[in-house]
Amino acid sequence: MSKYWSAIANSMEPYVCGEQPKDKKYIKLNTNESPYPPSPKVLQGIKDAANSDLRLYPDPKCDALRETIAKYYNLNKDEVFVGNGSDEVLAFSFLTFFNTDETVVFPDITYSFYPVYAQLYNIKYRLAKLEDDFSIPVNEFMTKNGGVIIPNPNAPTAKHMDIDAIRKILDYNSEKVVIIDEAYIDFGGTSAVSLIKEYPNLLVIQTLSKSRSLAGIRIGFALGQKELIDGLNTIKNSFNSYTIDRVAAIAAVKAIEDEDYFKECVSKIINTRETVTEQLTNMGFKVVPSKANFIFVTHPLFKASELFAKLREKAVLVRYFNKPRIDNYLRISIGSEEEMKLFIERLQRIVTEMENN
Amino acid sequence: MSKYWSAIANSMEPYVCGEQPKDKKYIKLNTNESPYPPSPKVLQGIKDAANSDLRLYPDPKCDALRETIAKYYNLNKDEVFVGNGSDEVLAFSFLTFFNTDETVVFPDITYSFYPVYAQLYNIKYRLAKLEDDFSIPVNEFMTKNGGVIIPNPNAPTAKHMDIDAIRKILDYNSEKVVIIDEAYIDFGGTSAVSLIKEYPNLLVIQTLSKSRSLAGIRIGFALGQKELIDGLNTIKNSFNSYTIDRVAAIAAVKAIEDEDYFKECVSKIINTRETVTEQLTNMGFKVVPSKANFIFVTHPLFKASELFAKLREKAVLVRYFNKPRIDNYLRISIGSEEEMKLFIERLQRIVTEMENN
Repeated sequence: MSKYWSAIANSMEPYVCGEQPKDKKYIKLNTNESPYPPSPKVLQGIKDAANSDLRLYPDPKCDALRETIAKYYNLNKDEVFVGNGSDEVLAFSFLTFFNTDETVVFPDITYSFYPVYAQLYNIKYRLAKLEDDFSIPVNEFMTKNGGVIIPNPNAPTAKHMDIDAIRKILDYNSEKVVIIDEAYIDFGGTSAVSLIKEYPNLLVIQTLSKSRSLAGIRIGFALGQKELIDGLNTIKNSFNSYTIDRVAAIAAVKAIEDEDYFKECVSKIINTRETVTEQLTNMGFKVVPSKANFIFVTHPLFKASELFAKLREKAVLVRYFNKPRIDNYLRISIGSEEEMKLFIERLQRIVTEMENN
Repeated sequence: MSKYWSAIANSMEPYVCGEQPKDKKYIKLNTNESPYPPSPKVLQGIKDAANSDLRLYPDPKCDALRETIAKYYNLNKDEVFVGNGSDEVLAFSFLTFFNTDETVVFPDITYSFYPVYAQLYNIKYRLAKLEDDFSIPVNEFMTKNGGVIIPNPNAPTAKHMDIDAIRKILDYNSEKVVIIDEAYIDFGGTSAVSLIKEYPNLLVIQTLSKSRSLAGIRIGFALGQKELIDGLNTIKNSFNSYTIDRVAAIAAVKAIEDEDYFKECVSKIINTRETVTEQLTNMGFKVVPSKANFIFVTHPLFKASELFAKLREKAVLVRYFNKPRIDNYLRISIGSEEEMKLFIERLQRIVTEMENN
């Protein structure tokens, strides 16, 4: 409590992001970053952008980047909104599409930033209880509400929802905005982008932080019909005219353009994910089927919180959420083949030690 | 109006920023950018930052940059907040320190983003009427209110307020936050930073966009006692964990560190401002005394709106605000010596033509 803070600031419980250690000794499998560097064309683009033009404001409309994304997804430029990471796009979306006096629905186990946005803007929300296998209960989203947001694949479960389920939710909620948060869609899921021409109430949000190896640059985007994108621009232009700097905009264009590199990285991550899933299954872990660049695992004999602590001692960082229903799970980002080999070795040693105690 | 937009989105009138033309033919004196490129050390820093680390999230706390700024201003790291341009810092500040049910005060002629932030967060405000010479009426800020925000120097007037006036406002409003927006302070003004240790209710906001030639990179910051900075972090971490990307953070550190280059640029701009002020005065313009990198001018015979249009025809962009009390003024950013020579020549031709008609 501070007398200088607003009522909102005094009441907020901020989001807590995964640890970003400053020493380099960890195998870092805790924040779903890509183990592979950005495309060499991205790095060259950044170097080229280090010039005297940086004295000038960037294009507030980000036309070049929006055109590049539009072309990639076969949309129009005015069907693309870009922001300072998909977190900013999400924050703007809550304010643009959801009202304080209506109840927004999202899964009970999901990206833990959603309830924080709702609190920040004083928006009521209802948690839709996931099935026991963590699949999305479609009927829970087919009740009177003030909008819907669902990640696909979901986080931290990695569970994927098929297009037919999304269609049902869009059809039912035709008067409200349905946001599909596709931060992890490139790792084997089916994007809802193909439904945009059909559904004026669909907003798809993606990011360059995961599949395009650019977590350090902060670019996210939203795709939807012009009416929704215009709304986002209205809020963004009431908050900050220039959210994307000149260097980031160029890096993002290069990242989208280098499709070969992107596909190669994604393919390697998927292969590693499948190998690790098999290895963990052989060790007695239950692995939720994943279409993301991470896996969500539990073991019938060993406590996740203990495994988390012991992995940390062995310089492996994974993510543990001390929350109802998932407090015996670990979320493990898929690192490089080499990192995952070390991870499996160290985890095997931990499990063996625990078995012998 | 859109049925998909929230009540807030449907009611907003966003801020409109100065034109960012994409062709290069203009002498661009419309958005107060620096005519000089960023320090060579900044450009080298950006090139060095183009490496594989960009796959990783940035430091959410921006420690390195906050330490650099703290050292420069002789403050502690926890007395520094950084954001994605000072516009983002301002947006966070309105939400962190101002309440919906209290009335915030700012000048009637000022940065036109303030009323937009107030509208966005449903905060009441009262406009303090500037004196006829555009000086700040201190007494207007010494009435019951929910907080104060004043730019110093003010924009678009360029008029500077002295430290004694700021002290009076801080003393009177000891229970409320007083924000001094110092975007233009480096061009000859006296910063209120020296008052921070004394006043727990003072927040000073600055930017790297003007005096440090980095409008294209988007870094702003706030300075104040830890209690205020903690509030800003609470709101920021409820909106976006990582607002500053890795490249921007490094560019900003290098810009602050290269003090010699900074001083040289600022000194050139001040010299050019004084020369141009004299030339315009000789042409019959009234120039408001400026401590900024722009000047605010009017002519007793010629309409500002006409001068604006004619300058644009001659490929010179300046800023014209069609608003009460200032609709016969032009705001002219100080460009390089060469640009201002061309500006004066073209303006002289326009004025001669208008005199002959």
